[in-house]
Amino acid sequence: MNNISKYPVRDSWEILLERPTLEKKNLRNTVQKIFLKVRNEGDSALKEFSTKFDHVTIENFLVSAEEIELAITEVPAELKKAINQAKENIFKFHLVQKAEAEEIETTAGVVCWRESRAIEKVGLYIPGGTAPLFSTVLMLAVPAQIADCKELILCSPPQKDGSINPAILYTAKLCGITKIFKVGGAQAIAALTFGTESILKVDKIFGPGNQYVTQAKQLAMEYNVAIDLPAGPSEVLVIADETAIPEFCAADLLSQAEHGIDSQVIFISTDEEVFNETLKEIEQQLAELPRNEIAKSALENSRFILLKSIDEALEMSNFYAPEHLILSVENPRNYISKTTNAGSIFLGNYTPESAGDYASGTNHTLPTNGFAKNYSGVSLDSFVKKITIQEISKTGLKNIGKTIEIMAAAEGLDAHKNAVSLRLKSLQNGI
Amino acid sequence: MNNISKYPVRDSWEILLERPTLEKKNLRNTVQKIFLKVRNEGDSALKEFSTKFDHVTIENFLVSAEEIELAITEVPAELKKAINQAKENIFKFHLVQKAEAEEIETTAGVVCWRESRAIEKVGLYIPGGTAPLFSTVLMLAVPAQIADCKELILCSPPQKDGSINPAILYTAKLCGITKIFKVGGAQAIAALTFGTESILKVDKIFGPGNQYVTQAKQLAMEYNVAIDLPAGPSEVLVIADETAIPEFCAADLLSQAEHGIDSQVIFISTDEEVFNETLKEIEQQLAELPRNEIAKSALENSRFILLKSIDEALEMSNFYAPEHLILSVENPRNYISKTTNAGSIFLGNYTPESAGDYASGTNHTLPTNGFAKNYSGVSLDSFVKKITIQEISKTGLKNIGKTIEIMAAAEGLDAHKNAVSLRLKSLQNGI
Repeated sequence: MNNISKYPVRDSWEILLERPTLEKKNLRNTVQKIFLKVRNEGDSALKEFSTKFDHVTIENFLVSAEEIELAITEVPAELKKAINQAKENIFKFHLVQKAEAEEIETTAGVVCWRESRAIEKVGLYIPGGTAPLFSTVLMLAVPAQIADCKELILCSPPQKDGSINPAILYTAKLCGITKIFKVGGAQAIAALTFGTESILKVDKIFGPGNQYVTQAKQLAMEYNVAIDLPAGPSEVLVIADETAIPEFCAADLLSQAEHGIDSQVIFISTDEEVFNETLKEIEQQLAELPRNEIAKSALENSRFILLKSIDEALEMSNFYAPEHLILSVENPRNYISKTTNAGSIFLGNYTPESAGDYASGTNHTLPTNGFAKNYSGVSLDSFVKKITIQEISKTGLKNIGKTIEIMAAAEGLDAHKNAVSLRLKSLQNGI
Repeated sequence: MNNISKYPVRDSWEILLERPTLEKKNLRNTVQKIFLKVRNEGDSALKEFSTKFDHVTIENFLVSAEEIELAITEVPAELKKAINQAKENIFKFHLVQKAEAEEIETTAGVVCWRESRAIEKVGLYIPGGTAPLFSTVLMLAVPAQIADCKELILCSPPQKDGSINPAILYTAKLCGITKIFKVGGAQAIAALTFGTESILKVDKIFGPGNQYVTQAKQLAMEYNVAIDLPAGPSEVLVIADETAIPEFCAADLLSQAEHGIDSQVIFISTDEEVFNETLKEIEQQLAELPRNEIAKSALENSRFILLKSIDEALEMSNFYAPEHLILSVENPRNYISKTTNAGSIFLGNYTPESAGDYASGTNHTLPTNGFAKNYSGVSLDSFVKKITIQEISKTGLKNIGKTIEIMAAAEGLDAHKNAVSLRLKSLQNGI
């Protein structure tokens, strides 16, 4: 195993923890062309792109009720039950994120509060490819449903036979998706941005995708559509002390590594035996994995680091700001407050990252690529906006009127001042 | 007065409410050059740009403790008192936005919750120009202080004499800004993005600015720095029924119009007398305003619309999605739940928008340009990220383990499955 580092000094961390730089192809022009064509030609452009990129001719992008019903019969009962349990947990976790409006009287007669409103139209992108990500449908559609978004549009590229994976259709139906379209890639994002004859323009776009989809979501923002999160490859950082179980650590590291060749895993241990055993376990488990080629490549981007203390490990973790942080240490709750930068934290030996990926209830759409320093993962908040509201009584205006007048005048904004002065005058006059 | 529209039909709304299209100059290249120079040359590039753009040579960008102390003596006592009252209200309103971590047991033995962590380093940009926006310092620094951000860096362009307006310095000191730098424009945003010898690289940049600053903030995102909100000209929509007071309506419309020539005001009334009186009042009050040239230009972008009912007016308002919505109607609280798209709502005749701009406690950094459809204004949330945390007991893993295994297998992610299977096996073996 390469990439081993024992007791690196603080000054070396920046280079040690550099993320694999993605080859930033200049896709902007390519995607811009797709956007303009979809904007100008609508569905007919989508048809052309489907034929070109998905190698299938789609006559009707909208998945019909019959197709959905058929798909539902095709999903094994066992998988349905699993999806249902996961949905229930995700629902519970996101439901408590609903905040009630609490009125605050900041000054006597001045009452202010916030209320949430759903973002009306949201678009969910679910990639095609090797893995049918029905779990991502759950993670995006469940909070959207709780937020009460009016339109929940799902786009996913058609398979070669023109269909969409039944598990995706089953989950979409279960979570109240209003319409499902067989369209993928940058053209799907363009359709959600501008609208076409069949696809509704949305206010915000969610979901993962390849580099074209990522570039398209960035471009969508220039057309005033919001997006969930900036994209980057997935990552995990595991901190293990002498109480960690090497077999489990290895399995967690590999479950991240199998995501893609650009995934990154960081293993930090304060115990040399656990460290060495985990390295051995990785080799053994890797051999058995169907996706071992992918995992192997990802491990090349990875780091295995011995450090002196858990505190030092946490300092390193905060510096790196991992998407997922697993604390396989004794009394892991003691270290939560010291964690300042992470997307999601997993405590102890029996909390694998895959629990959060699928079924514990937390959202798996998390900040990658160091964005855990400045972004939260997807939550109910991602599907609402909060409106501030205020009501000022006559007494209230008397109490803060002078303050407003003085401040407005000092900023040279006399009409702002005047809006208060006129009212105060009318109150003096007893109107 | 132009721009009057009586009982327009629904189909005409889209064109009627079109926002003034900003002349989108292609500033990207200009700003990109500034970014590269600041990244490569640091402070010396900043010096060069200050001389070129601000027409002043700055030797030391950092505002010294002495300069701050001096400024404090220069701010009139009355203004200090006003700023202090405003600060208190803003503090109260944002403090209650702190949410406590609530643990949820989604399945027996599966406990999940969220905790907030401050974004460590934030940069606040305060423009120079005609109005010294110390109120914006309050709106950004107060929630940053509540969030407990470690570094609160303020950048503002120097005046011709190399100083920064005393009210800005007073407010910055009052709100715990850690460092103030005399640097403005795109070069300030570049400095906050990359860091220089004197200025710290930050995680998120807040604050308004001209078109160069706006473009620079967009570019900063490409270098992984987050920003507060996409920018656009300020706007207000007033809905007035027969109980509205035309004098007040006119004052509120003008206080928005004086912001800039690209500001937009929309006046909707369900009462023809109030409508006509308000138009007259605008003409009269306009003549008295120091910034009447600006307000006059802004009024040309504006719309005065008669509609049949308050419900129709709200439908129009939701369609437009105003930054500020003033409900000068009887029983305004009855209409809150029907408002789906707005940055901030002001209820009744004694709640002028300028109250929210300065002193009621709500934040004045709000979504403009239709972004009230998909963005919230600045709040405590803007200065934190929320980390999800989970702890699963052995029993908990037994309860959801199978679900995870089935879902991971169905997505073709065997290492994800394996991370659970190994643990379940060890539990069966009684380890």
